[in-house]
Amino acid sequence: MNLDKPVVVQKFGGTSVKNPRRIKNVAEIIYSKVKKGYHVVAVVSAPGDTTDRLVDMANKITSCPTEREMDVLLSTGEMQGMAFVAMALNEIGCKAVSLTGSQVGILTSSAHSRARIKSIDAKKIYDSLARGEVAIVAGFQGVSEDDNITTLGRGGSDLSAVAIASVLKAKVCEIYTDVDGVYSSDPSVVKGAKKIDSITYDEMLELASAGANVMQSRSMEVAKKHKVKLHIKSSLKREEKGGTVVMEETEKTDEAKGLEDVFIRGVTLDEDQVRISIERVPDKPGVAAKIFGVLARDGINVDMIIQSSAYSSGVNDISFTIGHSRIDEARRILQEIKDEIGAKEIIIDEKVDKVSIVGIGMKSHAGVAARMFEVLSKKSINIEMISTSEIKISCVVSAKKGKEAVRELHNEFCE
Amino acid sequence: MNLDKPVVVQKFGGTSVKNPRRIKNVAEIIYSKVKKGYHVVAVVSAPGDTTDRLVDMANKITSCPTEREMDVLLSTGEMQGMAFVAMALNEIGCKAVSLTGSQVGILTSSAHSRARIKSIDAKKIYDSLARGEVAIVAGFQGVSEDDNITTLGRGGSDLSAVAIASVLKAKVCEIYTDVDGVYSSDPSVVKGAKKIDSITYDEMLELASAGANVMQSRSMEVAKKHKVKLHIKSSLKREEKGGTVVMEETEKTDEAKGLEDVFIRGVTLDEDQVRISIERVPDKPGVAAKIFGVLARDGINVDMIIQSSAYSSGVNDISFTIGHSRIDEARRILQEIKDEIGAKEIIIDEKVDKVSIVGIGMKSHAGVAARMFEVLSKKSINIEMISTSEIKISCVVSAKKGKEAVRELHNEFCE
Repeated sequence: MNLDKPVVVQKFGGTSVKNPRRIKNVAEIIYSKVKKGYHVVAVVSAPGDTTDRLVDMANKITSCPTEREMDVLLSTGEMQGMAFVAMALNEIGCKAVSLTGSQVGILTSSAHSRARIKSIDAKKIYDSLARGEVAIVAGFQGVSEDDNITTLGRGGSDLSAVAIASVLKAKVCEIYTDVDGVYSSDPSVVKGAKKIDSITYDEMLELASAGANVMQSRSMEVAKKHKVKLHIKSSLKREEKGGTVVMEETEKTDEAKGLEDVFIRGVTLDEDQVRISIERVPDKPGVAAKIFGVLARDGINVDMIIQSSAYSSGVNDISFTIGHSRIDEARRILQEIKDEIGAKEIIIDEKVDKVSIVGIGMKSHAGVAARMFEVLSKKSINIEMISTSEIKISCVVSAKKGKEAVRELHNEFCE
Repeated sequence: MNLDKPVVVQKFGGTSVKNPRRIKNVAEIIYSKVKKGYHVVAVVSAPGDTTDRLVDMANKITSCPTEREMDVLLSTGEMQGMAFVAMALNEIGCKAVSLTGSQVGILTSSAHSRARIKSIDAKKIYDSLARGEVAIVAGFQGVSEDDNITTLGRGGSDLSAVAIASVLKAKVCEIYTDVDGVYSSDPSVVKGAKKIDSITYDEMLELASAGANVMQSRSMEVAKKHKVKLHIKSSLKREEKGGTVVMEETEKTDEAKGLEDVFIRGVTLDEDQVRISIERVPDKPGVAAKIFGVLARDGINVDMIIQSSAYSSGVNDISFTIGHSRIDEARRILQEIKDEIGAKEIIIDEKVDKVSIVGIGMKSHAGVAARMFEVLSKKSINIEMISTSEIKISCVVSAKKGKEAVRELHNEFCE
């Protein structure tokens, strides 16, 4: 369908619609975009603590709420949010209609509480835009082929917004949050942290998975795959510029000016790390597969994995990191297979952090890693594990030294 | 579709599902019916004050909420109620699924906030029952032909239940409330008020419109039209008997035993009455049409209407009653047409009550009216207006005397 104006998708999270004042503010943001000559589709989350309150109530009724019914229940939060925003828009003279996931035709798999989007019909959205209305769409929800209400899991509203932007070929998908963009490091840890004006999907993915929780990796991956340009910005600051743009290629030439060889986007700290070392495992095929197979079977996500090469000893040390919440299960599982794999010892260290530097072009500049290690060494920060990728170098260090490490690295690479 | 067991529809109001304890109680009521060998469809309202809270929130966002969006918003309350009840049933081992108005296919007119039910598809309900599940349906809501969410207005959940019971040819439609049935008078006014075991639709309609607010007239009319047997009972008392059955023909023979000529079901008091008298209107065609036409145009409901016959004077007195909430508008409207209709004076008396006696066979027993007037006369209660129907006699009396009148009439007819 052809529309007369370009389409912009705007996504507003729960804190952006948590009370009447914030809701009116969101309406103003949307209306000002409309007045600038765009068709706007707004994706709205559940207001404030609505979802938490519904979950609490469900837990008082049953210790194990049916997933299908939980989806029905939670979908009402986003419906309330979208109705409020539509009302606020109509109040200020901007025509708007709200649409549920089912009305929009967001067809998903039938896996309740973690459904995957299969397709979006979008006819209803087009019709609404063609009539000159703003379409307010409930985030986080969809409908399965057998007409059951589904939800998309954590970060689901971001995903709804990105998917809709992709289908509508939107000019940009604006993600409104309570921070004003992505920073080169956590401002609460690093005083000199700088807002990043533009960044690539890959760099953003690395920043996100390393703890810069502005947006879920899953939505970012979909945005990258479908080349949806993202603009992350604050719903509280009313400025057209500002925020962080995420796209395929950034104008590094402009920004990287003055830097010699490599451009470091940011330094991240991940404190939710536990290091597990399985020591002296016989060096034979299938051992690593066994270890990570049993962990995966229980849904334990493993982050970094290091295996030291065995030359002559015939034994390996295998180290990896997981999140704190699954320590007890991991310990039990590994004890069970310890004898089978012939491991000597299992050591668990809960007091570690992961610090990472992220930037494109790292791999072709070996000097970056050396500089990173030197910075840490100068401050007597011992490196326990190292892992590298195309655009990231991560080091596991003692939790006592995590924050200091981030500050020093930011000082070295981002000032 | 043929099911292997009879169907019962159960409707639970907002107070019946206002907290986890009550919700679990509702699940027990439903499950015990299932265990007795019935297919159960439960129609559920929004829990407790959910609807009020949503309306409050909307009013904080806009002084004039869009009706379409208000329907979207309010429909979430019933969705929450149904999801909670379905969870509670699954928890105790009774298979249940919740269904929205849209999922059930409750097709309505597109008049938001006061939609009329056009048809119910019911395939989803049948499928669910055939799989051995309890179908939990959101009350109060439907969907219009153009796929917009609609609501049915006040008493809408009763209406949903009655309509579904009709389509499914249910054995009975049980209406659960916080009272244990319909009484011969308001127990808070008349100490000796007695619960009525069974009553006809017409009698119930008269009791309801005269102020016995157990169920909205609209739902009762639909029940009468489609011969849906109703059973009004308390969700707090767990007894199979009890409550009040509403049906086409009651077993009066049993209950009326010992009464001589007429069976009075109940005595009602309606305190929301304002008497308006338009005095000395010329007796010419079109005057009454004019008066009640302008009132109707502004949606002012008129209850009793009395016009004294004009024999020789050539002028009439026209009196009628309305509810308190619309006095100011009625006064303004009538002043506007006063000269046009040639009325001498408009008198408004806010301090009146309406007392009524209700029972089948009244018209053929003229003595009943006389007995009623005598009872009031004996206590020096002046009758300001009288109106009679097939099954009801109503008198407007001074508000000071309303309660006393009800007690005396109950004493005369119901003891």
